[in-house]
Amino acid sequence: MSLIDKLNWRYATKRMNGTKVPQEKVDRILEAIRLAPTSFGLQGFKVIVIEDEALREQIFNGACQQPQIKEASHVLVFAANKNVSQEQVDEYMQLIATTRGIPVDALAGFRAAFDGVVAGTAEQNFVWTARQAYIAFGVGIAAAALEDVDATPMEGFSVEALDKILGLGEQNLSAVTILTLGYRDEANDQLANAPKVRKSKEVLFQLN
Amino acid sequence: MSLIDKLNWRYATKRMNGTKVPQEKVDRILEAIRLAPTSFGLQGFKVIVIEDEALREQIFNGACQQPQIKEASHVLVFAANKNVSQEQVDEYMQLIATTRGIPVDALAGFRAAFDGVVAGTAEQNFVWTARQAYIAFGVGIAAAALEDVDATPMEGFSVEALDKILGLGEQNLSAVTILTLGYRDEANDQLANAPKVRKSKEVLFQLN
Repeated sequence: MSLIDKLNWRYATKRMNGTKVPQEKVDRILEAIRLAPTSFGLQGFKVIVIEDEALREQIFNGACQQPQIKEASHVLVFAANKNVSQEQVDEYMQLIATTRGIPVDALAGFRAAFDGVVAGTAEQNFVWTARQAYIAFGVGIAAAALEDVDATPMEGFSVEALDKILGLGEQNLSAVTILTLGYRDEANDQLANAPKVRKSKEVLFQLN
Repeated sequence: MSLIDKLNWRYATKRMNGTKVPQEKVDRILEAIRLAPTSFGLQGFKVIVIEDEALREQIFNGACQQPQIKEASHVLVFAANKNVSQEQVDEYMQLIATTRGIPVDALAGFRAAFDGVVAGTAEQNFVWTARQAYIAFGVGIAAAALEDVDATPMEGFSVEALDKILGLGEQNLSAVTILTLGYRDEANDQLANAPKVRKSKEVLFQLN
């Protein structure tokens, strides 16, 4: 089946049946997320992968008690950097140098351009890191569909609650979105067979 | 080849060779973008698909004269709604009702929840619509890779310039990101064979 078939098959699953997603599928979805591109390659975010029941119970209460949090196999919380520190940029430059076998000094021009991008306020940096997290989120949604795994994108949660439950603030992170992975409970999900609603291509695209 | 192989194959192509991407491939990439999920399903964005040479010349100048703008087959500009209007919400509710064959009145509860999400300031709504555009952007990047089409995510441009060139402001839109589609010019692209730099899974993921 093509990606388009898989994207037509998937939907924002509201009820899941508790079945565990095989580890190799989870690993491939996470690997796709890891390989997603980001601006300047920084990957200014982290993905918290949750199976623990007690933690889920807390997240459930911080996420409008949506049943997928408990019924999913895995809950992925995407958390973006609240700010971009010079230390983080240093680490990233070192990672490039090590990966490519070049001296850090050779990256001076790249770093100067990079410093320009993150020279704004913490708030501006967070708008930017959050967008990058959403690229990985989009790639993760496509990856889950290709693995025949249901995935529910969820923004309905208290950022404050999740940041506290997961200890994100201390890590310079803040939760931006959730993806639950699992399998649909067709009998109990009223959306399971509802036609997909999308703008027509004539409305969504402007051809120039 | 799996999605992971394709994501390893792709990279942020800095030089393209001008070869046209077959229309059926472009159509499938756009269809994947159209099918990408968004919060509440609103799709609060538009994608401008550009082939026109004169327009590209202008965008080239508004985008730090990056060569991919001219060397790509297609330039996709993702533009998010600057605000979410009640008229837009009305239209969307009508689209759901028509697609699913239900009366608009049946959506009263859904609409109330929705109105709560877009009750903030225009600025807050734009942060939200931009993130949704980035989901589609991520899905589009995965789709291009699966089609063996090179795709360059580009944030280096003047928002003001692009909004003006494409007449986005009048449409309640503002440019958030660009994806160029085409084929790599390996001989002239110094990144063509550079090892991919990514955080290790131990660093990017936190398992709970």
